[in-house]
Amino acid sequence: MLIMKRRDFVKKASIGAAGSAILAGCGSSEDEGGAAAVQTRPRINWRLTSSFPRALDTIYGAAEVLADRISKLTDGRFQIRSFQAGELVPYDQVLETVRKGTVPIGHSASYYFVGLNPALAFDCTVPFGLTARQYNAWMYYGDGLKLTREIFADFNILNFPGGNTGTQMGGWFRNQVNSLADLRGLRMRIPGLGGKVMDEMGVTVQVLAGGDIYPALERGTIDATEWSGPYDDEKLGFYQVAHNYYYPGWWEPGPGLSFYVNRKAWNALPSDYQAALEAAAAEANVGMMASYDAKNPAALARLLQNDVQLRKFPDDLMLEAERIARDLQEREAAADPSYRRIYESYSSWRKNSNRWFSTSELTYATFAFRHT
Amino acid sequence: MLIMKRRDFVKKASIGAAGSAILAGCGSSEDEGGAAAVQTRPRINWRLTSSFPRALDTIYGAAEVLADRISKLTDGRFQIRSFQAGELVPYDQVLETVRKGTVPIGHSASYYFVGLNPALAFDCTVPFGLTARQYNAWMYYGDGLKLTREIFADFNILNFPGGNTGTQMGGWFRNQVNSLADLRGLRMRIPGLGGKVMDEMGVTVQVLAGGDIYPALERGTIDATEWSGPYDDEKLGFYQVAHNYYYPGWWEPGPGLSFYVNRKAWNALPSDYQAALEAAAAEANVGMMASYDAKNPAALARLLQNDVQLRKFPDDLMLEAERIARDLQEREAAADPSYRRIYESYSSWRKNSNRWFSTSELTYATFAFRHT
Repeated sequence: MLIMKRRDFVKKASIGAAGSAILAGCGSSEDEGGAAAVQTRPRINWRLTSSFPRALDTIYGAAEVLADRISKLTDGRFQIRSFQAGELVPYDQVLETVRKGTVPIGHSASYYFVGLNPALAFDCTVPFGLTARQYNAWMYYGDGLKLTREIFADFNILNFPGGNTGTQMGGWFRNQVNSLADLRGLRMRIPGLGGKVMDEMGVTVQVLAGGDIYPALERGTIDATEWSGPYDDEKLGFYQVAHNYYYPGWWEPGPGLSFYVNRKAWNALPSDYQAALEAAAAEANVGMMASYDAKNPAALARLLQNDVQLRKFPDDLMLEAERIARDLQEREAAADPSYRRIYESYSSWRKNSNRWFSTSELTYATFAFRHT
Repeated sequence: MLIMKRRDFVKKASIGAAGSAILAGCGSSEDEGGAAAVQTRPRINWRLTSSFPRALDTIYGAAEVLADRISKLTDGRFQIRSFQAGELVPYDQVLETVRKGTVPIGHSASYYFVGLNPALAFDCTVPFGLTARQYNAWMYYGDGLKLTREIFADFNILNFPGGNTGTQMGGWFRNQVNSLADLRGLRMRIPGLGGKVMDEMGVTVQVLAGGDIYPALERGTIDATEWSGPYDDEKLGFYQVAHNYYYPGWWEPGPGLSFYVNRKAWNALPSDYQAALEAAAAEANVGMMASYDAKNPAALARLLQNDVQLRKFPDDLMLEAERIARDLQEREAAADPSYRRIYESYSSWRKNSNRWFSTSELTYATFAFRHT
């Protein structure tokens, strides 16, 4: 417990250099500080295009948290109206739409857009990547925001951290997976980098959109599917047709969502509206994590009342997946210097923070969470 | 990975009821929504009294993050000037000073004020309490903010979550502690509830202010001291005179800091300034955690280059400490119905979230952090 008077501190402490720890700024101009108490605040109306359906209320809800706060901060003068995936554009057109400025702001998961630039994955998550807390530290106080913004500059976009799900679950399996060998020939719905790793481990990877997964799992066209965590998974009802619920979702250890803002639209905002957007994004960021952390425990408890068995992925599978994931990333880095730059920042951040996170935080959690 | 189009979702999902997940509001009035684009925004200057010295730049820095953001949000019209502990009032007078309105806003750790009401500890942390993420979930999306605000209402204060240190370290010991029995007769500087638990385990508890600890540890007047985490501990130099660095700090598993706002001062603010304060507090909240998570790993690495040995508290000590801590809280709850109310909310939140936190998040962390 920190208890000290000011005079105490100067006795011994080496005074910290950084007196002011401010979240990374992003181009807000200086306060004008003029004497006028009467000013003009423009009315601005934006549409926001989300990559998520409204029914996934936690992840979609971050856009509403953002819009509500910005409205309150500007006495209703800067209004943002949120649209769910498919209302304005499909979920995978959000980046392109904001790039063009057709819609000035979006909310998405940047790993949807690795086809445009593989390094965009680091704005969200990669297999065996950072946890939610490590990610926020890297984004706000490491090079994360700086480096991801360099990538987004190519798309005429300014990105802001805008939520996290925490470590997702590994998904729903009709049969048990007791070793790496059990993956061979398994038909699993898993997109993205996780799917690439699974493919190298012998899985027959299927990519199905949300609504097609349940019937495929029910009919046995697929043997397994991943999705998100208990609260979101429960809505899709997978527990009714596959009873083995595996963890951890090593391909999504702490997915960060992002708000995308078109740079031209950003530059046209008054500086206090820019500040409003930045502060509201930070609030949405902490709020989504808290919301998932509030809802997932109860959802998991409900799922466990439905013949669901919690199962841990076997060690040999985890180790092999980690090896393959690192190898995929190393190959990408060898082929692309701009990928290497952000990959190295991200990887060394992870490596350098492991010892600290493995001491107090992990040891306490292991002890405290044993009461299940 | 969540990928779906809107039409997919309606095929199977039970639509979530809560379409809008908003961080708990706190009395901001409705947007006035009037047509006038020209308005009057008052100039307001507040002083903020912190319980922390400027040299502890991360925890003190949250006040500067708050002030800087509020200034930007209001075009410099709402200014908050931060003062470190002792400049306006001593660290332990912050609550009383804000209560009286002498200073309209403070930043502190509510466990400093358990003498006024023991239940104030839940606004910060208790031995074997919530982790930082569990705490945010309870505060923002459980009953935490509501219940702590009921307590603070007695002090004419509105509280806002304003930062977290994460699980602190267990502190610096001149000799090894290999079992519970080794605590008997040990002279340790540890204030608060942690000190009460240590006392029941046979420790001779000492309470020393920050600047008096180092010389006492150097001379051998005390055998051990706790303080905070690596980044803050390093500044006080304990590693030079005690080489056994224990973890975890089970008495401070996720201390939440708070901003205190005098209710009369709050009520006098225009609603957009209230919104600015609330959003800036949320940003400071996520920012302090990220800042500690960025700084602690490097500080720990530096400490380990100075003959520091990381050591885990023995299991029998942890179990006995947990038993005693629970017992202390149960006794308090038996004597005080208002304490019981918040204790039960806090405890059931912890209990109900353990299973979820012990699955994906903990299993992934245990695996990923093993590379140390």
